Amino acid sequence: MGNVIVTGVPRADLDVVDQLAGLGVATVHEAIGRSGYLGPGLRPIQHGVRTGGTAVTALCWPGDNLMIHAAAEQCRPGDLLVVTAASPCTDGMFGELLATSLAARGVRGLVIEAGVRDVAELRAMGFGVWSAAVSAQGTVKETAGAVNVPICVGGQIVRPGDAIIADDDGVVCVPRAGAGRALAAALARVAREEQSRQALAGGQLGLDLYGLRDKLAARGVRYVDYAEYAAAGGEEA
Amino acid sequence: MGNVIVTGVPRADLDVVDQLAGLGVATVHEAIGRSGYLGPGLRPIQHGVRTGGTAVTALCWPGDNLMIHAAAEQCRPGDLLVVTAASPCTDGMFGELLATSLAARGVRGLVIEAGVRDVAELRAMGFGVWSAAVSAQGTVKETAGAVNVPICVGGQIVRPGDAIIADDDGVVCVPRAGAGRALAAALARVAREEQSRQALAGGQLGLDLYGLRDKLAARGVRYVDYAEYAAAGGEEA
Amino acid sequence: MGNVIVTGVPRADLDVVDQLAGLGVATVHEAIGRSGYLGPGLRPIQHGVRTGGTAVTALCWPGDNLMIHAAAEQCRPGDLLVVTAASPCTDGMFGELLATSLAARGVRGLVIEAGVRDVAELRAMGFGVWSAAVSAQGTVKETAGAVNVPICVGGQIVRPGDAIIADDDGVVCVPRAGAGRALAAALARVAREEQSRQALAGGQLGLDLYGLRDKLAARGVRYVDYAEYAAAGGEEA
Amino acid sequence: MGNVIVTGVPRADLDVVDQLAGLGVATVHEAIGRSGYLGPGLRPIQHGVRTGGTAVTALCWPGDNLMIHAAAEQCRPGDLLVVTAASPCTDGMFGELLATSLAARGVRGLVIEAGVRDVAELRAMGFGVWSAAVSAQGTVKETAGAVNVPICVGGQIVRPGDAIIADDDGVVCVPRAGAGRALAAALARVAREEQSRQALAGGQLGLDLYGLRDKLAARGVRYVDYAEYAAAGGEEA
Amino acid sequence: MGNVIVTGVPRADLDVVDQLAGLGVATVHEAIGRSGYLGPGLRPIQHGVRTGGTAVTALCWPGDNLMIHAAAEQCRPGDLLVVTAASPCTDGMFGELLATSLAARGVRGLVIEAGVRDVAELRAMGFGVWSAAVSAQGTVKETAGAVNVPICVGGQIVRPGDAIIADDDGVVCVPRAGAGRALAAALARVAREEQSRQALAGGQLGLDLYGLRDKLAARGVRYVDYAEYAAAGGEEA
Amino acid sequence: MGNVIVTGVPRADLDVVDQLAGLGVATVHEAIGRSGYLGPGLRPIQHGVRTGGTAVTALCWPGDNLMIHAAAEQCRPGDLLVVTAASPCTDGMFGELLATSLAARGVRGLVIEAGVRDVAELRAMGFGVWSAAVSAQGTVKETAGAVNVPICVGGQIVRPGDAIIADDDGVVCVPRAGAGRALAAALARVAREEQSRQALAGGQLGLDLYGLRDKLAARGVRYVDYAEYAAAGGEEA
Repeated sequence: MGNVIVTGVPRADLDVVDQLAGLGVATVHEAIGRSGYLGPGLRPIQHGVRTGGTAVTALCWPGDNLMIHAAAEQCRPGDLLVVTAASPCTDGMFGELLATSLAARGVRGLVIEAGVRDVAELRAMGFGVWSAAVSAQGTVKETAGAVNVPICVGGQIVRPGDAIIADDDGVVCVPRAGAGRALAAALARVAREEQSRQALAGGQLGLDLYGLRDKLAARGVRYVDYAEYAAAGGEEA
Repeated sequence: MGNVIVTGVPRADLDVVDQLAGLGVATVHEAIGRSGYLGPGLRPIQHGVRTGGTAVTALCWPGDNLMIHAAAEQCRPGDLLVVTAASPCTDGMFGELLATSLAARGVRGLVIEAGVRDVAELRAMGFGVWSAAVSAQGTVKETAGAVNVPICVGGQIVRPGDAIIADDDGVVCVPRAGAGRALAAALARVAREEQSRQALAGGQLGLDLYGLRDKLAARGVRYVDYAEYAAAGGEEA
Repeated sequence: MGNVIVTGVPRADLDVVDQLAGLGVATVHEAIGRSGYLGPGLRPIQHGVRTGGTAVTALCWPGDNLMIHAAAEQCRPGDLLVVTAASPCTDGMFGELLATSLAARGVRGLVIEAGVRDVAELRAMGFGVWSAAVSAQGTVKETAGAVNVPICVGGQIVRPGDAIIADDDGVVCVPRAGAGRALAAALARVAREEQSRQALAGGQLGLDLYGLRDKLAARGVRYVDYAEYAAAGGEEA
Repeated sequence: MGNVIVTGVPRADLDVVDQLAGLGVATVHEAIGRSGYLGPGLRPIQHGVRTGGTAVTALCWPGDNLMIHAAAEQCRPGDLLVVTAASPCTDGMFGELLATSLAARGVRGLVIEAGVRDVAELRAMGFGVWSAAVSAQGTVKETAGAVNVPICVGGQIVRPGDAIIADDDGVVCVPRAGAGRALAAALARVAREEQSRQALAGGQLGLDLYGLRDKLAARGVRYVDYAEYAAAGGEEA
Repeated sequence: MGNVIVTGVPRADLDVVDQLAGLGVATVHEAIGRSGYLGPGLRPIQHGVRTGGTAVTALCWPGDNLMIHAAAEQCRPGDLLVVTAASPCTDGMFGELLATSLAARGVRGLVIEAGVRDVAELRAMGFGVWSAAVSAQGTVKETAGAVNVPICVGGQIVRPGDAIIADDDGVVCVPRAGAGRALAAALARVAREEQSRQALAGGQLGLDLYGLRDKLAARGVRYVDYAEYAAAGGEEA
Repeated sequence: MGNVIVTGVPRADLDVVDQLAGLGVATVHEAIGRSGYLGPGLRPIQHGVRTGGTAVTALCWPGDNLMIHAAAEQCRPGDLLVVTAASPCTDGMFGELLATSLAARGVRGLVIEAGVRDVAELRAMGFGVWSAAVSAQGTVKETAGAVNVPICVGGQIVRPGDAIIADDDGVVCVPRAGAGRALAAALARVAREEQSRQALAGGQLGLDLYGLRDKLAARGVRYVDYAEYAAAGGEEA
């Protein structure tokens, strides 16, 4: 147990990851069975960026970014760094200098369940960041943690090498072994959604498109005219 | 009590609603006696949009958007859909497909005390959204709720047919029967504010403009020179 | 103790403040020993603004902005108004009219551990605001507080006359007496950072640049190959 | 709209309220269709108290308890005072002196979406309190609000005269007109639950008692032996 | 600026502190002008303890309790240790061993804007603790901070030597120089409250006791009979 | 991926689990390298209960407890049920009836990152519960999830069969394969702590006991007499 840096981690196929990234977080999340979403607490610091990469993970001590430096060495082109802390932390563990280092190694972005700083500079660099906070609070480099072990981020397990997709809707994690299946399912979903989009744009209702009228009836939902509802005391009926 | 969809709800006069929308949330909220504001937890997903509409309300189960589909059918041009959940929920209950459907029916936007997704697409469509969260987490369509009943959103009661105004400051609800009075009061306030704006821009102080010097004195507020304050121990005086 | 308005407060040297502002919040915070940061809860309502000023402080009652009007009179060119409330409050205590008044007096911006409103108008005016909330909820002018006394904002003490620097990373407070030393330290840091930036952009790792390899070893961090790690039961090793 | 004190409010039948109170919050909430629960944010300051009463409602300004004093006059024996604030507030709006006054009028307790203080004294008095916070922070008596108007508490609408039931699980509101039906439904539920309790205590599973096995199968839930699951890559299967 | 341990701090008169403690947090907070309350976020881990002491302050790094050990040496009988962290932290920085050490030095308790652990043991020892969290998460001893400097706790400034009073309502800080005045004011308040208590217990209303009827009228509060209110559309009037 | 119920999960040795339980959460957490703590958000609904068991895990949909019923069948004597939801949820997913069923199967308690209800009854039964909320809000049984898959609870990974220890300090998870080593380390720690306890009770300082004086010096911590500190401007020095 403990403070390890795992090397030589196998990654999801980067070509598959890139195709998943093109489909976006919501579509991929649905395609893998409505799982893997890292929650509404991780927000992009920029607008309009959609990216993907293979996870290198880091577990830091609160107020300490030592292990992000250790993780940088494990990164290779196509990776996306995923960081959390041993306990809740909003400090600015990551900034423009670390982004410069990661960009030089071909890293595609950062997902961090903690804070980042230098956000104006990060936006200007075009280095995509999804974080739980923006904070200038600096950190020390004193306490050990781990790199490339499974971690929890936003209530989901992220394992090294998993496919990470991120856009304005947040971040989704696709298990490494399931990336291929996820892509097939997501492409099928995109096709179905395009049909739905046209039907809905043409005025068809979701009630009919998805066959929900029977569901409503089966669950006892009644239609009541406002006049009758109000006469019966309205909300007090 | 219960799972009803109320039809034929009377709406606030749409012409009045449009004029209220032109005046903005803060002004309308003040004009109706500092009431009806749906709180700081509902944030726009876009910048610079100011709109208004008549409320169609929906009450959903957490993690379930069945009743949004039922509500869509009750919407007509000029409406604005207002959604909440039976218990706190951040899931992405609403996205681009539902927005496509609502836009096709002339709906002006969405206010939701839960999450939305596809925010890049929603911004691109120009469909205005105010939400409690952005989340790609998908929902099911299994459990009944209600449409067009009074609901609580952000600590305020919203009734179907009420006037809803939304802009970068958030969302305000004006009771249907009070919309006309609200407009008169808001217009009067705008005129007064224009006078205040000029006075303040010219260097007059709010202390004088609003007659606050006597209030300060009556409440025992004293002016102390810094040197004296510091000599007396400063903050420990 | 109590309800005082302190006048004639000495300020940090404005020329020093302006130079600090040019260096940004994160750099200044580090230069003064990783202190003075007002926390991740104070967010700018605009993007890309970096400013600084000397603090005029105000302590308000929740739901009441009387003392902001009293504080306005104590402001002079180069000041930055810093406001908090006696208990947690998200109400919109400040809006476009107050900003008009402050701008007319040469005030550079607002830092408020409460809410603001008229944010579209404030952005259009170019009046920089860092706040804990955006809320249209209006306030009354009934209850006394204090102006230019030490206050707590975001877990830090702010004293009248202190240097306040604010940008997209948040807000930092530099004690008045320490502003000169802070500038010297910040300038030195900027020079060092430029060297680090070039090294990192050239591919050097932080592990080497900052001499962290020995630290990792001293703390018992081990490198393990993935195959060995997985064979030993992976995360259960 | 506005600052009114409504007098002569009709109440739910107190005998019915007392019987509902005997059945507890969870049972009553289920019996009325899983509605009316005032949320997990309202916690009892004491253990083991189960009570009920008819609602007198008060809407206060944050940091101000003027309207609680106005509400006290509207209370009569069997009432339970329900208070909220115009915006989020944790201040100690209520303490032992107000409880003494209410107890003298036969009031059964307090539900407040804000703070209370003197909690040791309130416990010693046996005056039941459910609140969003405990705080010694005092309040002023300056700003108007309303008494006996519908309010939102914990995401639910509470109307004057409604039946309020409170115990260690929190608080539920039963609309006045529905109290009788609620009692009948709750009594029926209690009988059913007693049967379930015996079956479950005897070792029967909820899967069988509630007929859930078919549901699981219909939703595609598969049973997999651990050895097979682990061989397939465990969680990555 | 910086990492100092201040020795030989003057304390508030312990006899005065003890008398203040006997009066309780709410009373003392009111007596000093409704100030100094450390907020609803600091909760006692035990019930029914009321104590007071003179503040020794410590500022720690998140996830690190090194400076609590440094602070212990500065404690003497009658002190109460007050701890915060440089950024928000819930870790269990303090437990039974540190309490054993402090108890051996005559320290009366702990106020900490972070977490504590061993709460069962601390309750059994009778060592009073007010904390922002309970957490078993351990901390390291690596990073410097400060002892006996002014700190912010719960939005209030606490200076070394200040009088700290704590009970079931939370914690209040009385500036050292103001302790004597606080006691006089608090004693006077207690006498007034006893009169109020008897009047209210006898059935007098706060509306009359505090002369609030005129205030209500002056603020435009109207009394409306329910029948009239309902006829006018009730809440929609 | 997906909706599976894993059967026949190997468990940690129950005798080892029982011994770990006797040592308590904080001790075990430290012994395994300060890891595995499920965070301050999971609180016991009772005081003074310390227990342990082997994890059966369940992943539910928000507002839906179908999978808890499925999990009950997988429980055997010595187990402890650990539940989370697919997205944040405070609903009362568990109450007295389910506890009756689990108790009949020899289950030792419940850890749930969601809400529970019937807390008075659960306390009376002596069924230990650690939860993120208390809420009477009921749930449906409509949507699939999983049983005995790895889940994230409180930022930590919990796998079926892991050892779970819970007491007043919260909950810690010890990986199944590491339980034996954890026990050895925890017993050694207890012995060391007993020595420390005696030394500290006898007046020795942690500064000396843990050799921290050199650390302070190495990190530049200076001792300053109060008089000197105050003369230099106190906190502004």
